[in-house]
Amino acid sequence: MKHYTLPVSPSTVHWGYFSKAVEPALVLKSGDRATIETLTHHANDDYERMIEGDPAAEAIFHWTKEQKTISRRGSGPTEGPFKVGAGEGVGVHLLTGPIAIEGAEPGDILEVRVLDVRPRPSCSACYSGRCFGSNVAANWGFHYHDLIEEPKPREVVTIFEIDTAGDPYAKAVYNYIWTPQTDPDGVVHPIIDYPGVRVDHRLVKRRENILQNVRVPARLHFGTMGLAPAEADFVSSIPPSYTGGNIDDWRIGRGARMYYPVAVDGAFFSVGDPHAAQGDSELGGTAIETSLTGDFEFILHKKDDLGGTILEGLSHPMLETDEQWSVYGFTYANYLESLGDNAQTEIAQHSSVDRAMRDAFRKLRRFLMTAHKLSEDEAIALMSVAADFGVTQVVDANWGVHGSIRKNVFRCY
Amino acid sequence: MKHYTLPVSPSTVHWGYFSKAVEPALVLKSGDRATIETLTHHANDDYERMIEGDPAAEAIFHWTKEQKTISRRGSGPTEGPFKVGAGEGVGVHLLTGPIAIEGAEPGDILEVRVLDVRPRPSCSACYSGRCFGSNVAANWGFHYHDLIEEPKPREVVTIFEIDTAGDPYAKAVYNYIWTPQTDPDGVVHPIIDYPGVRVDHRLVKRRENILQNVRVPARLHFGTMGLAPAEADFVSSIPPSYTGGNIDDWRIGRGARMYYPVAVDGAFFSVGDPHAAQGDSELGGTAIETSLTGDFEFILHKKDDLGGTILEGLSHPMLETDEQWSVYGFTYANYLESLGDNAQTEIAQHSSVDRAMRDAFRKLRRFLMTAHKLSEDEAIALMSVAADFGVTQVVDANWGVHGSIRKNVFRCY
Repeated sequence: MKHYTLPVSPSTVHWGYFSKAVEPALVLKSGDRATIETLTHHANDDYERMIEGDPAAEAIFHWTKEQKTISRRGSGPTEGPFKVGAGEGVGVHLLTGPIAIEGAEPGDILEVRVLDVRPRPSCSACYSGRCFGSNVAANWGFHYHDLIEEPKPREVVTIFEIDTAGDPYAKAVYNYIWTPQTDPDGVVHPIIDYPGVRVDHRLVKRRENILQNVRVPARLHFGTMGLAPAEADFVSSIPPSYTGGNIDDWRIGRGARMYYPVAVDGAFFSVGDPHAAQGDSELGGTAIETSLTGDFEFILHKKDDLGGTILEGLSHPMLETDEQWSVYGFTYANYLESLGDNAQTEIAQHSSVDRAMRDAFRKLRRFLMTAHKLSEDEAIALMSVAADFGVTQVVDANWGVHGSIRKNVFRCY
Repeated sequence: MKHYTLPVSPSTVHWGYFSKAVEPALVLKSGDRATIETLTHHANDDYERMIEGDPAAEAIFHWTKEQKTISRRGSGPTEGPFKVGAGEGVGVHLLTGPIAIEGAEPGDILEVRVLDVRPRPSCSACYSGRCFGSNVAANWGFHYHDLIEEPKPREVVTIFEIDTAGDPYAKAVYNYIWTPQTDPDGVVHPIIDYPGVRVDHRLVKRRENILQNVRVPARLHFGTMGLAPAEADFVSSIPPSYTGGNIDDWRIGRGARMYYPVAVDGAFFSVGDPHAAQGDSELGGTAIETSLTGDFEFILHKKDDLGGTILEGLSHPMLETDEQWSVYGFTYANYLESLGDNAQTEIAQHSSVDRAMRDAFRKLRRFLMTAHKLSEDEAIALMSVAADFGVTQVVDANWGVHGSIRKNVFRCY
């Protein structure tokens, strides 16, 4: 077993997509561990607190008229003219990787254990050592066309500080309403339609003393983590799918074991979208987006060894913790396969909790029947009386419902 | 403060509906307590274990060609000819009550505290002192038209025993596929379409040794509890609505405080549909349905005293526990008002988790803005990062999503 370190740098991150076509940042063997840094793609909501003085973050977010370190941000076109920018923001998350796993082949399952998660402290002169994050009530939020107060609609950025002295919690610092921001290439962004645009704080009005009596207990986790799908070379990081990705379940933190179906040789694991806290549904469009570093262990389960294990027949991402298993249902289990050539944009027109609930039911039934050897009637009875279905997210185009079954239901666990 | 006892009997239960028109079984003052017995309407799935030898249960379920103790079962027609029986099974739950609260008026909020919940042991010779329940994977279940194994479709009854020696848990005893059952009036029930039909066990095939290694930790609670709506004299017990009813949240057990808007003079509280355990979604159509007895406290909050409390502006049921508040979203917040004359049957054509999620979002936003004095932007940020939305049920026509916020988020709690 080797323990690697994968820091963030312009050569170890890719922005807005999963890809089987990108050169791996690291190659591992099954059983190896890695400490992996991740950056939030929302760091430029407050450059001073979340980028300034952090050499890697400064390099990655660097964008002037003359130079943009990471040009492509998303799976969209990279040849202009652009509506919003290279990659066209079809996909938004800064991901570290890919990490290739030696010997991984389609049909295998990659297990990723999250051994530890830590915040990435600010390096700026004023805020050194303190930790910050950004929550955005965004145009893709569930609330956006259903607001009460004026101006309508509006996007709101709330900056949080994460206190890590004791049990970590987050406290709001200030918020502001998004105003049109002009990027270094001269494109105006009237709404948040492209990742990594630096907010000019002279153009927004900070409101202090917000959420004054509120402390949000931290749930450090990775919103986006998974493998490269087979269907396309560049796949938007927004909709979660059969190889994982932007699942946005706050349970995917320390102690979690995630299982992902391998779709391409080498598996090509990427991780990012780090969150300090999120609720089930991620209602407004984002969590408390904050840079995190994790310790991970990778275990490859070969196709031929899955029979008789809980991984037999697994064709979708699954979570295991000490307490439970969760399967992830989506509007479309594999939207890339189901929706054709324009799937990556089309999926946003089909978002449905009802369909995600249907998918989660089918996946949990299959798990109980295959992994726990129940009849269909036993599985359905058990689901009715002991399985909990929750709304994972209603903001990632391919909306999600998770179905969870506690391990203490089975006497052998 | 007085402590009353309300046993089940033919004169203290009503079957299948909430009603402002039924004579109260008990009249209380705010601050009074009551021990209330409830019977599961599924007891006749196994008469021997759940009815035999229990005088009250025998009397209530009594139905021969000559005599049917409780003729009306549901809010439907009571003059024949019947398709399925008096009340037509439009509503199915045996409810104890109504309990009138002195001085309660529309606009008030009734708080109901669940102080304790206990199983009702079997009185039969063979099973005396032991506790049983029934789970039905029913025609109204989420799975019903989406089965894998033959015969399709099918309804399956699973009988559980509840072990109360230590931490209570349930263990399956046997199951059977529903077969056509003929009631004493000669009506054949090819599916489960009328409550309280005694299953003739000569006509079903018991399958033993099911769910062998499974123990379901108990979550004793009341599936159906609430007040009489104003809109009609007889309202089906199946769809939950603005005065509560069939919410089917397993959190409504010991320690729960439920708040209900009063819609009619006297409030007219009824409770039943007792459950030994249920998962979020109640996927197959029922929980482990078992008879329970509860200790309750009733506190009337007058309309004029609500300002400045967490109950200000409350127009829907809400749960408070030591840890959290939950608001209940439905496909229609008040389906009786929204769907017109045929609302009670029509609602089943509109079931939607998506709509329930929308309703839950709006209700939780209002709660945070009114009770916790947050701005809309603060409320939406807080919901995104700290509120959890779960699928309460997808089987009660007016499908439900609950939105929960933990109290430890607020420093003052």
